Amino acid sequence: MIKVGIVGGTGYTGVELLRILAHHPQAELRVITSRSEEGVAVAEMYPNLRGHTDLAFSVPDSKTLGECDVVFFATPHGVAHALADDVLQAGARIVDLSADFRLTDVPTWEAWYNQEHGAPHLLPEAAYGLPELYRQQIVESRLVAVPGCFPTSIELGLLPLVEKGLLQDQRIIADCKTGVSGAGRGAKVGSLLCEASESLHAYGVSGHRHLPEIRQVLSHAAGSPTDVTFIPHLVPMIRGIHATLYCRSELSQVELQQLFEQRYADEPFVDVMPAGSQPSTRSVKGSNVCRLAVHKLIDSDQVVILSAIDNLVKGASGQAVQNMNLMFGLPENTGLEHVALMP
Amino acid sequence: MIKVGIVGGTGYTGVELLRILAHHPQAELRVITSRSEEGVAVAEMYPNLRGHTDLAFSVPDSKTLGECDVVFFATPHGVAHALADDVLQAGARIVDLSADFRLTDVPTWEAWYNQEHGAPHLLPEAAYGLPELYRQQIVESRLVAVPGCFPTSIELGLLPLVEKGLLQDQRIIADCKTGVSGAGRGAKVGSLLCEASESLHAYGVSGHRHLPEIRQVLSHAAGSPTDVTFIPHLVPMIRGIHATLYCRSELSQVELQQLFEQRYADEPFVDVMPAGSQPSTRSVKGSNVCRLAVHKLIDSDQVVILSAIDNLVKGASGQAVQNMNLMFGLPENTGLEHVALMP
Amino acid sequence: MIKVGIVGGTGYTGVELLRILAHHPQAELRVITSRSEEGVAVAEMYPNLRGHTDLAFSVPDSKTLGECDVVFFATPHGVAHALADDVLQAGARIVDLSADFRLTDVPTWEAWYNQEHGAPHLLPEAAYGLPELYRQQIVESRLVAVPGCFPTSIELGLLPLVEKGLLQDQRIIADCKTGVSGAGRGAKVGSLLCEASESLHAYGVSGHRHLPEIRQVLSHAAGSPTDVTFIPHLVPMIRGIHATLYCRSELSQVELQQLFEQRYADEPFVDVMPAGSQPSTRSVKGSNVCRLAVHKLIDSDQVVILSAIDNLVKGASGQAVQNMNLMFGLPENTGLEHVALMP
Amino acid sequence: MIKVGIVGGTGYTGVELLRILAHHPQAELRVITSRSEEGVAVAEMYPNLRGHTDLAFSVPDSKTLGECDVVFFATPHGVAHALADDVLQAGARIVDLSADFRLTDVPTWEAWYNQEHGAPHLLPEAAYGLPELYRQQIVESRLVAVPGCFPTSIELGLLPLVEKGLLQDQRIIADCKTGVSGAGRGAKVGSLLCEASESLHAYGVSGHRHLPEIRQVLSHAAGSPTDVTFIPHLVPMIRGIHATLYCRSELSQVELQQLFEQRYADEPFVDVMPAGSQPSTRSVKGSNVCRLAVHKLIDSDQVVILSAIDNLVKGASGQAVQNMNLMFGLPENTGLEHVALMP
Repeated sequence: MIKVGIVGGTGYTGVELLRILAHHPQAELRVITSRSEEGVAVAEMYPNLRGHTDLAFSVPDSKTLGECDVVFFATPHGVAHALADDVLQAGARIVDLSADFRLTDVPTWEAWYNQEHGAPHLLPEAAYGLPELYRQQIVESRLVAVPGCFPTSIELGLLPLVEKGLLQDQRIIADCKTGVSGAGRGAKVGSLLCEASESLHAYGVSGHRHLPEIRQVLSHAAGSPTDVTFIPHLVPMIRGIHATLYCRSELSQVELQQLFEQRYADEPFVDVMPAGSQPSTRSVKGSNVCRLAVHKLIDSDQVVILSAIDNLVKGASGQAVQNMNLMFGLPENTGLEHVALMP
Repeated sequence: MIKVGIVGGTGYTGVELLRILAHHPQAELRVITSRSEEGVAVAEMYPNLRGHTDLAFSVPDSKTLGECDVVFFATPHGVAHALADDVLQAGARIVDLSADFRLTDVPTWEAWYNQEHGAPHLLPEAAYGLPELYRQQIVESRLVAVPGCFPTSIELGLLPLVEKGLLQDQRIIADCKTGVSGAGRGAKVGSLLCEASESLHAYGVSGHRHLPEIRQVLSHAAGSPTDVTFIPHLVPMIRGIHATLYCRSELSQVELQQLFEQRYADEPFVDVMPAGSQPSTRSVKGSNVCRLAVHKLIDSDQVVILSAIDNLVKGASGQAVQNMNLMFGLPENTGLEHVALMP
Repeated sequence: MIKVGIVGGTGYTGVELLRILAHHPQAELRVITSRSEEGVAVAEMYPNLRGHTDLAFSVPDSKTLGECDVVFFATPHGVAHALADDVLQAGARIVDLSADFRLTDVPTWEAWYNQEHGAPHLLPEAAYGLPELYRQQIVESRLVAVPGCFPTSIELGLLPLVEKGLLQDQRIIADCKTGVSGAGRGAKVGSLLCEASESLHAYGVSGHRHLPEIRQVLSHAAGSPTDVTFIPHLVPMIRGIHATLYCRSELSQVELQQLFEQRYADEPFVDVMPAGSQPSTRSVKGSNVCRLAVHKLIDSDQVVILSAIDNLVKGASGQAVQNMNLMFGLPENTGLEHVALMP
Repeated sequence: MIKVGIVGGTGYTGVELLRILAHHPQAELRVITSRSEEGVAVAEMYPNLRGHTDLAFSVPDSKTLGECDVVFFATPHGVAHALADDVLQAGARIVDLSADFRLTDVPTWEAWYNQEHGAPHLLPEAAYGLPELYRQQIVESRLVAVPGCFPTSIELGLLPLVEKGLLQDQRIIADCKTGVSGAGRGAKVGSLLCEASESLHAYGVSGHRHLPEIRQVLSHAAGSPTDVTFIPHLVPMIRGIHATLYCRSELSQVELQQLFEQRYADEPFVDVMPAGSQPSTRSVKGSNVCRLAVHKLIDSDQVVILSAIDNLVKGASGQAVQNMNLMFGLPENTGLEHVALMP
């Protein structure tokens, strides 16, 4: 059994980790930390876990964490920077759900996060936890940075074309729609039901922190600088991200469909739907799947790729567990075979 | 034109007052206050008001407020206590949407609100602003306490029976359901879309602050102590209160229907629906109407009354304007004829 | 492995059965029928099942069904009546999610369902599938009638008091709130998002088909005729039932809490929450749990019991699988340990 | 008073017309037709109209309609084709909310609507009812085709750039999001709350009927063939359309802002928000306003225009009344000054 610790388990990615790990056959949750909720039973804060765990939140402590085999960070940025060294030296591996180790370039990180990078010396060994692109690095790493939710949906949608240099130009547009859980459990006016329901609006038009991450991964996959125009929108639902990706290619519909099916033929968590499909986010609600459909418009070189994930699963905690499975030599889908809740 | 001031206009009852007053033909908004938003244009905070008002929030100041003909308080409890004297002495009348002057008994107020009553000397002249019961007092008063949202829905549903002593016993149950806007615009975790949508739960089972108000009004109408069991529930919608009222009577369905229709025949904002109806909250969304239906169950003395209001309109700001109309001798429905937004 | 057939798998209880059975370690889905969707792949209709099943809908055929060990009926009333004999004679057992075998009294069934009862001769061997009350009968039966969703939530909330005759009188009120999935997947105007969202209304005030079922079970448990006033309300959410139960008792809060905890101490799917709790429906979303809280109001004999289930799981398909587990000697919670999806 | 008739008043655009016309100071509703609901009181079907109208649905009859000054068609396509001649000859003018007279090219209409065009001889006198572009034609016409909801949001967002030839290329993308009321009040599975809530998906990727209309209007405004890639998405809310428009220009942010502000300076129903704004659909819920914001991305020629309307108001019934006002010489905003319902 893998001994698991979670730092910062009170947010939505934290409780989602708990939901997934509660019945993971090879993982055993040992410790979960929260300064603000010290001593509170996890199941008191999240009654869905009553009967599934007896743990209570404790104050983070690198000794206890170090006794785990793996520690998940479900924390705001900066926290993993501060604790990673101690945890790694104590012998535990790290799966970090925050943005701390996603960017390989320190100045870029510092520019977007407005603070000094706290652990640049660890970057060389950090793997970017998108198994569909970096599986081998993940297997060999003791420090994995789980991708952001938007980047996951966008990168999986564009990889087949970008990797092979099949786009006509770089005018890629990623129009993304996210449920409100992407904003976290913080008590913000903009996330209130009375503000966010029965409405939709764009946000971060002038620049969103996931942009440099998307650029880095696509550029690396392409082998040359690659950019996208990325506009997120807030949608009145709890879970789900839908990326609508616009690019141009000379490939036909049939060629595109083949390209995507071949690229993801062996991937357990990427589902290329039949030509003509239009995936809905509810078809992945609560599951670790990314569902893709690729469309070539008639009489045009316009390609439209539709990509749907659950932002808390494939976009966060599910992908984190997928990474853990890889790091510990387990079958990649262990504990991750949830069927989406529909309706 | 009635010169209007609003104290505390940043919450949901404040913006709803602005929506209604923006096109009230006899009211002119002169001042709106908010300490925290001083200098901010109202339409910047509430873009639905762009083009409808040029006002900006200012710091409350009793001189400026006193130059108004009427001042609405859309504030937490305690604020109206502190400012009412000055405003009244400066010559303005007051319509208070808070709980400050609803209860006639000072110790009861202090017990439920956990603080000293700040203006007990004003209670004798405060009218309880339910026009359907206290119209004459309202017309003659310079200080009106707008009823709470739950009390409005419950009292209007029970008045016809209670006033005439037609209930068999006092075992009245008020099972109430409210939209999330009833919790206000404060940034609370429980009001987040991700917490409150796709769910329903009871709250305040051990006691809700609207209970003593309901007791007071029903007892006064009945002429003897009258109590209810009152359980509110939080429903995943923005607006609307639905009270399901259970009591017992020997009246037949036909007699009940007649009783209700006669009681409210001349009331512009109480709609007694035909026998067999089941009003939906959306049928009053954005309007000042209370829709009622009364049912007698077959082979039983059980009466079930269904009462639907928009908590922000008839349950707050619309009723406040209805009171203002009465206080200033205007037709009661002036500026209040909105058709509910449906769908 | 238990060989499983499903008749009528296109509705919401059908797809929920598929979700649960997809990873049930002892069940193997063999056949799923639908006349209207013959030949359509299940995963085409319900894309959440892509990768989880290769089955296609087929026309119902008693020979194929009879080769199963158990057949679930997820059909409108009347269908199980027509097919049960053949299926049972072919050797399969039946778990019926419809209303066909819930009522023991034929005239009552015929009065509420407006048609002749199609299989009265099977009633003597039909067990009412509420394991918390009829576990032994279920274990021994080859024909189980899964309770309705409202009855499940109401009966579990009242059983501890009713069984022991601890209620002061029979004036029990069950004010129930249900998500829209309770209305099924039929294309009805009243179930449209634009009609049902942002609103709440009562329905079936003059009489709901679940009422005779509730009466039958409570009366049997009480040993004497027991009735309730039952008013359902439609709530703008997909899943969830919340029953707010009002009755009267001389027991204290402490005695009530003990009574409930003891009654359900060994029940895997009934969770009696600590005193003072107010369960939310989302805490059981996607799980087979019924969460209960019992409240005694201050200075009163009024008892308020709060009962929350997922109408599609403990209120239908989860409870159906729980029954199957009992009928086949499996641990009762096999394949049913889902953690509720929260948020 | 303008005597008004409505053909097909049972759908969402019909009831929205009723809401707006109920308090229009210069319009008097005389007749409303529906074959299926003949004799039913409008307020019985739409209880929000109780107390606002006594009309009942009647069978369409060109004599009665012809006695009106103006007839609104809120019907499926084909109906206005069949009735327009009679109504016009009887002396009434027509405001058609359907697609019947939007396209000037008959073969295009027939290709997209799969049926013969029923009234090509009327096309020369039909005005396209977008006042911001065709005000003079509308004033002079007796037959106005109200634009589609998506076209309204897209055209208003692009007109300032397209009219002046300020786009760098024709690679315009319109990623649109609509509430479910856009799908109408028909009982379709895809519009059920349980299917459409808590989810988002694209639809019509292979071609949507609003596309030829958008092409026609933009091409006419540009003076040369202009095309867009148009992908609509279904969003879990009742009302609202948000168009996110991507195009390229060498204008700076300041120049773009000036261009938009000048273009719409005199338009009562187009609100160009300050630079940096991100309009939400709720800011126009129930109002006839189109709110726009224009963004130039940093270090790029990428322009992103955000356009929000209420699909049932500026996207249908409100714009229809705006057209009526123009046709009858009234101030354009008569009866249309509703403040959006927020929250």
